[in-house]
Amino acid sequence: MTGRSIDGKAIAARVRADVAAAVKQLPAQPALAVVLVGDDPASHVYVASKAKMTVEAGMRSVEIRLPAETTQADLIAKVEQLSADPDIDGILVQLPLPKHISEPAVLAALDPLKDVDGLTEASAGKLVLGKPGLRPCTPVGCVILAKTERPDLSGANIVVIGRSILVGKPAALLFLEQNASVTIAHSKTRDLKMVCRGADILVAAVGRPEMVRGDWVRPGAIVIDVGTNRVPAPEKGPSKEGKPQTKLVGDVAFAEAIEVASAVSPSPGGVGPMTIACLLRNTVLAACARRGWDIPAALN
Amino acid sequence: MTGRSIDGKAIAARVRADVAAAVKQLPAQPALAVVLVGDDPASHVYVASKAKMTVEAGMRSVEIRLPAETTQADLIAKVEQLSADPDIDGILVQLPLPKHISEPAVLAALDPLKDVDGLTEASAGKLVLGKPGLRPCTPVGCVILAKTERPDLSGANIVVIGRSILVGKPAALLFLEQNASVTIAHSKTRDLKMVCRGADILVAAVGRPEMVRGDWVRPGAIVIDVGTNRVPAPEKGPSKEGKPQTKLVGDVAFAEAIEVASAVSPSPGGVGPMTIACLLRNTVLAACARRGWDIPAALN
Ligand SMILES: NC(=O)c1ccc[n+]([C@@H]2O[C@H](COP(=O)([O-])OP(=O)(O)OC[C@H]3O[C@@H](n4cnc5c(N)ncnc54)[C@H](OP(=O)(O)O)[C@@H]3O)[C@@H](O)[C@H]2O)c1
Ligand SMILES: NC(=O)c1ccc[n+]([C@@H]2O[C@H](COP(=O)([O-])OP(=O)(O)OC[C@H]3O[C@@H](n4cnc5c(N)ncnc54)[C@H](OP(=O)(O)O)[C@@H]3O)[C@@H](O)[C@H]2O)c1
Repeated sequence: MTGRSIDGKAIAARVRADVAAAVKQLPAQPALAVVLVGDDPASHVYVASKAKMTVEAGMRSVEIRLPAETTQADLIAKVEQLSADPDIDGILVQLPLPKHISEPAVLAALDPLKDVDGLTEASAGKLVLGKPGLRPCTPVGCVILAKTERPDLSGANIVVIGRSILVGKPAALLFLEQNASVTIAHSKTRDLKMVCRGADILVAAVGRPEMVRGDWVRPGAIVIDVGTNRVPAPEKGPSKEGKPQTKLVGDVAFAEAIEVASAVSPSPGGVGPMTIACLLRNTVLAACARRGWDIPAALN
Repeated sequence: MTGRSIDGKAIAARVRADVAAAVKQLPAQPALAVVLVGDDPASHVYVASKAKMTVEAGMRSVEIRLPAETTQADLIAKVEQLSADPDIDGILVQLPLPKHISEPAVLAALDPLKDVDGLTEASAGKLVLGKPGLRPCTPVGCVILAKTERPDLSGANIVVIGRSILVGKPAALLFLEQNASVTIAHSKTRDLKMVCRGADILVAAVGRPEMVRGDWVRPGAIVIDVGTNRVPAPEKGPSKEGKPQTKLVGDVAFAEAIEVASAVSPSPGGVGPMTIACLLRNTVLAACARRGWDIPAALN
């Protein structure tokens, strides 16, 4: 192993500590509302962990759990109510939503000033136009991780594999804001391996287990693995209940990549924890913008 | 000369003919309002030419010329009035505005359904999110020109030099929508020449006279020159009034590039005429979306 493993957990803990310090400097306590529809167990775990960290950062957490059969109209009414509530600073609608509900319709009901996930049309527009606004959490996490290794990204060649609304496209735009040269690759890209080998910083947001191999990485590059893929783990043997077990792996073959790269952000343990930390950060930023508070120095 | 010169004038004339055919199929005549503040002679010529072509395409042209000392509040009031007017389908505020007026403040007053220039926050958000909406005219023109040479852009390597809100960024996003792999380069890009040599399609939107030389172009590539730069033209001799004369040149050294490329869109005579044609196209699309009309077949 020649490269460093980027410790996303530790970096995320630092971001959360900064958020907690910032919250103490605010005139009032910000509140984050998380809306969860249905009973997907993974989503419930995720929302519980968000709530716990919100409280740990000194903010108020409002959890709204709605049954899977909630109608789109009812969900929109709830989001509108939270948007109108002066005591709520951030609203996160946990995705994916049940199939009978249109995500864009729900997001359209969300006050952009409270859009801590950065996924509304208004937030996306502000991102392209370079206006102040709330940026999507996972891509912001990628930029922060890259900057811990290379504080000045100006002129760096960044390749982002993936062009989703959630990760790839906003990550590309955020790295561009950092004055990097950015290439966006995807499933139609020809000779992806060679494209990746041109990257000083390679961001993989694909959803294909360990697709990025060691020989896709330029020696000395920084690799940010966004992928989280659940795969069979026969090496664990059957579970106590006798079921085959699984594990999470990233889009990058970590053991190979770290032989070549200067640093690799692993998955799990890299971008994942950053996403929640950036959500808490966005909640403070949203509270400051909406309530006319100065952004506490701890957040800069 | 080995490559073709892409005839933007002829292609734009075809787009305008399609728009005129589409207008004939509509239940009513769309109207485009152009708002011009101040007395910049170039802007006046440009607005007059837009008005002429609007009428030639069978639409109604509403020209609003305001004095240079118009206040921001008065301009916003005018834009709000046009936004509220049910008979107006498209609104274009001619840029640049006088220095005492904030462009974003004026654009914020513009109904996104009438944003035929595609420059509002809402239109930019829709572009990133891949939702239907009005796209910026010049970048759409670039894509149309590229597709006349290469109808299927899937997997093509596109390099866009420039990352402005008006051209570079939306062009990159539009080529991405065409399933191209897109690299965005700018003033901080290292070894720009080599980056450009990787392009199957090279789009220059920089504003530096003839910066892109022949050896920046991969043999057989397609080059789209967006730049329009006014430079001294001593070869013309003095004008009748005895003044030194000028001429327009692009960002690409055309004579060199055409020796190497399979096709070059020259400037002037390439993207320029496409911009107005796409504006007329957007006016019809805006009218259809807002009034609930089907988009006429001529526009597909
Ligand atoms: N907090 C976190 O850590 C976090 C947050 C969000 C997502 N993720 C993970 O990140 C990954 C990506 O998420 P997403 O929401 O962006 O996924 P997505 O919407 O499915 O997008 C995947 C992207 O990868 C591209 N792609 C698919 N197969 C490819 C291939 N063989 N070669 C090159 N590109 C390929 C797709 O290209 P096309 O557009 O051409 O189809 C698409 O743009 C997933 O594993 C997800 O679980 C993690
Ligand atoms: N209808 C038309 O034909 C039409 C319409 C619009 C614009 N244009 C023309 O297109 C050109 C660009 O317009 P714009 O509005 O996009 O201009 P802009 O806002 O000035 O943007 C210029 C871009 O070029 C980049 N750049 C500047 N110098 C560079 C260098 N030496 N190497 C690499 N990149 C460099 C800048 O990089 P940084 O971001 O790092 O500063 C910036 O992103 C102009 O000539 C304009 O007149 C034509």
